[in-house]
Order: sequence, then C-alpha cells, then structure tokens
Amino acid sequence: MSSFLDLNKEELQVLKCDLEKELEILKKLNLKLDMSRGKPCKEQLDLSMDLLSVLDKHSNLICKDGTDCRNYGVLGGIEEAKELLASFMENRIENILIYGNSSLNVMYTILMQAWVFGIMGSTPWCKLDEVKFLCPVPGYDRHFAICEEFGIKMINIPMSETGPDMDMIEKYVSSDESIKGIWCIPKYSNPDGYTYSDDTVKRFARLKPKAKDFRIFWDNAYTVHHLYEEKEKHDHIIEILGECEKVNNPDIVYKFASTSKICFPGSGIASLAASTENIKDIKKHLKIQTIGYDKVNQLRHVYYFKNLLGIKSKMLEHAKILRPKFELVLKTFDKELSDTGIVRWTKPKGGYFISFYAMNGTAKDIVKKCAELGVKLTDAGASYPYHNDPDDSNIRIAPTYPNIEELEIALNVFTTCVKYVTVEKLLSNI
Amino acid sequence: MSSFLDLNKEELQVLKCDLEKELEILKKLNLKLDMSRGKPCKEQLDLSMDLLSVLDKHSNLICKDGTDCRNYGVLGGIEEAKELLASFMENRIENILIYGNSSLNVMYTILMQAWVFGIMGSTPWCKLDEVKFLCPVPGYDRHFAICEEFGIKMINIPMSETGPDMDMIEKYVSSDESIKGIWCIPKYSNPDGYTYSDDTVKRFARLKPKAKDFRIFWDNAYTVHHLYEEKEKHDHIIEILGECEKVNNPDIVYKFASTSKICFPGSGIASLAASTENIKDIKKHLKIQTIGYDKVNQLRHVYYFKNLLGIKSKMLEHAKILRPKFELVLKTFDKELSDTGIVRWTKPKGGYFISFYAMNGTAKDIVKKCAELGVKLTDAGASYPYHNDPDDSNIRIAPTYPNIEELEIALNVFTTCVKYVTVEKLLSNI
Repeated sequence: MSSFLDLNKEELQVLKCDLEKELEILKKLNLKLDMSRGKPCKEQLDLSMDLLSVLDKHSNLICKDGTDCRNYGVLGGIEEAKELLASFMENRIENILIYGNSSLNVMYTILMQAWVFGIMGSTPWCKLDEVKFLCPVPGYDRHFAICEEFGIKMINIPMSETGPDMDMIEKYVSSDESIKGIWCIPKYSNPDGYTYSDDTVKRFARLKPKAKDFRIFWDNAYTVHHLYEEKEKHDHIIEILGECEKVNNPDIVYKFASTSKICFPGSGIASLAASTENIKDIKKHLKIQTIGYDKVNQLRHVYYFKNLLGIKSKMLEHAKILRPKFELVLKTFDKELSDTGIVRWTKPKGGYFISFYAMNGTAKDIVKKCAELGVKLTDAGASYPYHNDPDDSNIRIAPTYPNIEELEIALNVFTTCVKYVTVEKLLSNI
Repeated sequence: MSSFLDLNKEELQVLKCDLEKELEILKKLNLKLDMSRGKPCKEQLDLSMDLLSVLDKHSNLICKDGTDCRNYGVLGGIEEAKELLASFMENRIENILIYGNSSLNVMYTILMQAWVFGIMGSTPWCKLDEVKFLCPVPGYDRHFAICEEFGIKMINIPMSETGPDMDMIEKYVSSDESIKGIWCIPKYSNPDGYTYSDDTVKRFARLKPKAKDFRIFWDNAYTVHHLYEEKEKHDHIIEILGECEKVNNPDIVYKFASTSKICFPGSGIASLAASTENIKDIKKHLKIQTIGYDKVNQLRHVYYFKNLLGIKSKMLEHAKILRPKFELVLKTFDKELSDTGIVRWTKPKGGYFISFYAMNGTAKDIVKKCAELGVKLTDAGASYPYHNDPDDSNIRIAPTYPNIEELEIALNVFTTCVKYVTVEKLLSNI
C-alpha cells in the first residue's frame, strides 16, 4: 500500500469505496466491545482469588504492635501494610500513609485539603483568585476531571518519550505563583506508556516554584506493571522523593500508588508517600475525616503478598496475560497502518495503554465510527484538559480488558475506521 | 449514706479522709484501663470471624446485574448491598448510596461537597461569610470536630429524653440563613442514649429553614443496637426520610449508617440515604472523587448477613455481651452514687454509652483523678462543641470495651473519684 498522502483523488475514492464495503461487513457482526477503560480482564482477576481466603476464622488479626485489626483506629495504616507499600514504592516507612481502596480518591483528598485548608499554613486555594495546574498531555482524564471540578485552570504541557517539556515547566512554576501543581504519571504513562528520563526526574526534584505550596502530584500507578519478564526490558525511573530529599526539596512532591492493578481493582489498598512535614500536615486534617481505613483489608494484602517479591511475581503473571494483547495491537497497527504514512503510535513496555495519533482532525470521527460498529473506545480528547485535544489526533487504546479474539476483531474495526476516516478527510481537503 | 448536700463541713472532711484512703488503695493497683472510646470488645469482634471466609476462591463474585465485583466501577454501590442497607435503614433502594468503611467519612465528604461546591446549585459554603451548625448537646465529639475544622460556628441545643429542644431549633433555622445544618444522633444518642420522640421527628421533617441549603445530618449510628432482646424494650423512631417525603420536604435530610458496630468496626460498609435529588447532586461530585468503593467487601457483607434478619440476629449476640456491662454500670452507680443526691446518669436501652452528669464544675477534675488512677475516660467536655461543657458536668461512660472484671474495677475507681471530687468541691464552696 502506498502512503495515503501520495494518492490522488481518484485513488482515494476507490480506496474509500473498498473501505466502505469492509465497514458494511463489520457492521453486520453486531459487535458490542468495550475498549474504553484500562480495566484488567477476567483472567487477571482470577489470578488473585486466593486473596479472598487468605484471612479466615483461624487468622490472627493482631498486628505486630498489638493492634487488633478488627477494631477501630490506626489512622494512616498498620505498620505491616506500610512496610509492604514502602518497599513497593521505594520509600521509607515513616513517609508512607495507607488509605482506602482508591489512589484516585487519595489524590482528590490531598487536593481537597489544599483547597479548603491550605498546605502547611499557606492560604487555602479556595481563597485565591486563580489556581492553575500544569497538565502533561496527553494524560489521565480523571486527573483533569478533578481540576475541572475545583475550577482549577489547566495548562497543557507537551509530552515526549523522556517526559513532559521541562523547559516549559521550569519557566511556568518559577514565574507564576498561581501555579500550584502538576499531574505526573512518571512511569508507563497514561496513555503514551512513556517513562520519565533521569534528567526529567532530576529537574522535577530541583524545581524552584514561586508558590511555596506548589506540589508535584506523582501518580506512580504503573510502577511494577511491566509487560516483559526480562529485567532489561523494564523501564526504570529515579525514585522522586529520595531525589527531592537529596537536593533539600523534600516537600515538593506527593507520590501515589495502589494495589488496584496488582490484585482486585477497587478492592485494594492505596498509599501516599511524602516528606515527614507533608505527612504531618496531611494527618492533621485526615484525623478529622475518618477514624481509620480498612485495616482488615490491609492485613489481607500483607498476608497475601508477604513482601515485594510476592508483588513482583504476581506482576509476572499479569504480564503473561497482557503481553500478547499489546503485541497483537502493535502487530496489527504495523501490518495495517504503517504504510499509510499518516498515523503513529507508541510502543510501551508496560502500563495499560497504547497511544494512537491519528491524522490531525480525525480522532473524534474515528472514535465515532468505531462506536457505530459496536466498538467503544475512550472518547477522543479525553486525555486532554477540558476534553480538548487541540489536534484532534490522540486516541487511547486500552487493550487489556477484551480477550484476544475480541481484541482482534476490535482492531480490525479500528484500523478500518482509521483508514476510512483518514481517506474521507484527505478527500475533503482536496 | 445521706445526701452530700446535707452534710456539714466536719462530716464532709471525715468523708474526704475515708475517700482518700480508698483512693490510696486503688492507686496501688497500678491500673491501665481505657474506657475512652465506644469500641466493641474482643468477644464482640469474635462474633464476626466467619465474615473473613464467607468469600473464597469458589465464590461467584458476579452481581445480579452482571457486574464483576472484582473489577473497577459501580459508583454508589452494588444493588445487593443497597438492598441490604436499604432494609436496615428502612429506605428505598433508589435512595441509598454505599460508600467505603466509615460513615463518619461519608458525613465529612457530604459536608465537604457543600463547602466546596454548594448543594443543588446553592452558593458554596466556603464563599459565605459565616456558616453555622446547630449541635444538640451533649453529642458526638467527631461531629463537632468536623465543624471546627471547617470553621463552622457551632450553637449548642440542649438535649432531653425526647430529643433536642425543637422550639429553639425551629426558631433558629427559620430566622437565620447562615444556619446550614444540624447534627443528630436520633436513636440511642451518643452519649445520652436518648431516642427522639415521634413529635420531635415530625417537627424535624416539617422544618422550614430560611436557608434552602440547610440539611439535617441524621447519623443513625445505633439503629439496631438494642441492649435487650425483648421487642417491647426496644426504642422506636419514626423513619425520617419517609416522614420528610410525606410532608413534601424530602431534600432536608441526609441519613447515615454503617455496619461498623455490627461486624468489624472500620472494615464494614457505610451508607447514605437521601432524596432522589440529593442523591443526584451528591453523585455528580462523587464520580470525580473515586471510581467506586470496595465492591468485594460489599458482597462479603451481603453474603454474610444475607438480609435484615441476619443483621438483627447478630445484634442479639452483641446485646448478650453488652447488656451485663451496662447493667453493671447502672447497678454500681445506683449502689454507690444514688444517695449522694447530687449526680445523675442516663439509663439507655441501646447504643454504646451512658451519660453521667456530675455536680457542676467537677467533670474535668473527676476525669483527671480517674486518669491518675490508671482509668482513662473520654475527656470531660469532649461531648460539647469546642470541648466546652458550660456546666463542666457531663462525662461519657463507654462500658463496651473492657471485660466485666476490668469494668468493675474501673467503676470502683470512677465512683470513688466522683465522691471524692464532689466532696472536695463542696468543701471549697463552704
């Protein structure tokens, strides 16, 4: 196939005709496939069924420090859970707080506290005329939704394979006091699957923001979510809190993680890592908010995983299930779309997504076309603040949830739609 | 023993001497007993051990509606959990939201939403010059702590056996637009153990507040927490939301409950009941806050309790453990203190507390004296906004946590301290 850009009007019209026929056939399949969210599939969930019975009536639910996990109390988590999550997050126990079932909820809570009460004695953000956040794009729609809900103005920062544009970030945070935060998914980013380079992390740690209450919201959602077994195929990232401490800037970062994509999504435990001063500030408010989070579930996870090795070996099982799906996407894109000369996509070694960049001005139409054929994708633009992808180009591919046969059909639909909408667009431009 | 009030100076001095000797002996016991919080005891926790294994690897975790509880999603709870909690709360399923492990956290979240975003389009409370809450006193310290954290001004409303002073409440809410809420524990109240009368509930439902965004925070924490098996010894209360609907005032109330004192405190499920419009308003914000709460734990509770009968029969087992403790307190107070003519206490038929009213100006000293002898009570004043009991009289007795032997010793300490501090006070007044 020649590059679409080399085709003349007649050739494009012939191609459009062929693609229309293909779409007709696909339509008759009456598909109903959902690739819209980064959800684990059934086989992945089945991996963790022993979690359900690891505690039973013979279990000792008394912690090392004497706490009965069945009763009230222990704000910030039991020591055993802190140990497990500390090793997983590469932080010290004293820098860890354990929360409930959702790291998104932890991020929301932390931001809400800053909004209502301020950070370490600073003016509550709700009292300010304007609060802005930097948003590396494309990024995670639920991060942006939190900002939108609070009326925080979002500023796009372009992403590249080494992370967000640090020149731009440094310029913004050092000059504008109303910039209070930045959303980061530093490893196997959502949706690109990029991992921040050493240089990027080092520059983050060394930021000198004009606003004393500027914070990096470091959502390390995919820290152990490798697609390959071989260590040399894993992305690596400098641990941010340690790096911040090294340059005497420990308070600048809040780091988030959870076990949600390690065992059961939404039934795991979430955690925050931050400096001692940040932890103190956060707990002061947290103690008003709740008596404590679910300690029985914390202990359940400790008994189940035992240690970091337990987590890592579980992730190998996930990788076995997920790798063929990611490889199928890449193989299909390569076969069907590489010659079109007009689209590109990322090739992550971990995480939950592949980022697809369609010809400018076509992403929305592609997603719509797929929906008409029964394949639901993440809304085009969802990965951008205000749902506004300025190029209308990015589509987030979430290959984890469907089984391999469904995925194959969905990719067939997707690639055909991409070609069809692209040809249509090219024709309309002639 | 004569009433302390009838004793002359010399008689009081003799009595003081005797009591000092008793205190000396008690001090030598080197006690370390904690009666400060309303925590279930070990035997109560042991009642629910089967909860831990009710789900195992053979469990079907697919809900009636096809939802896989192990995966993401379902904001507001699975239908099965809504059914269980709806029957427990005496509300319709469509009026129920299921949250995480803590009803206190639900209350906080609801108040925070009003603070940041407003209620049904009203001005966010954070934008107002003043926000006030009415606080029936004595009440629950953690309610008051939330108000204090947000800078909400609290106004004391006296409690009686039929509930808070409704004349006062009606006058306040109908005349002052800055009054936005009231904290209620309508059944077996904390700490008095009072249950609102039919008339009180009816008047609550018929409140006509000046502020359209005034809400009753109805914390039904002890709805099935009877101390006696016989139904005729149970307190009854009119279901508030239904009553509000009946008088076309459905949006005025938020109702809260949880399973925390039914199975494992802090590892249960919490719920909100509210009007359809309130639920819609709350979910609009909640969906930004989290993807969903722990559905596996919701299903675990549904499998374990099955239905309302399951909950009620579990409560009978709790009552068997708790009743002797409450009876011991009442018997001891009766024996040791009824003749003093100067103190009184409540005699609840459910809940977690007995409210003790010492001679004015002595509560702090009594609690301090008990602490010196190794018996930790709830801080005097804790049951009042700003920790300020204007009479310095109320002491919350929490008899659930210690075993019966410990409780006996603690009561010995307590009654001796009450007598000693009272005599001391009387002497200082002469």
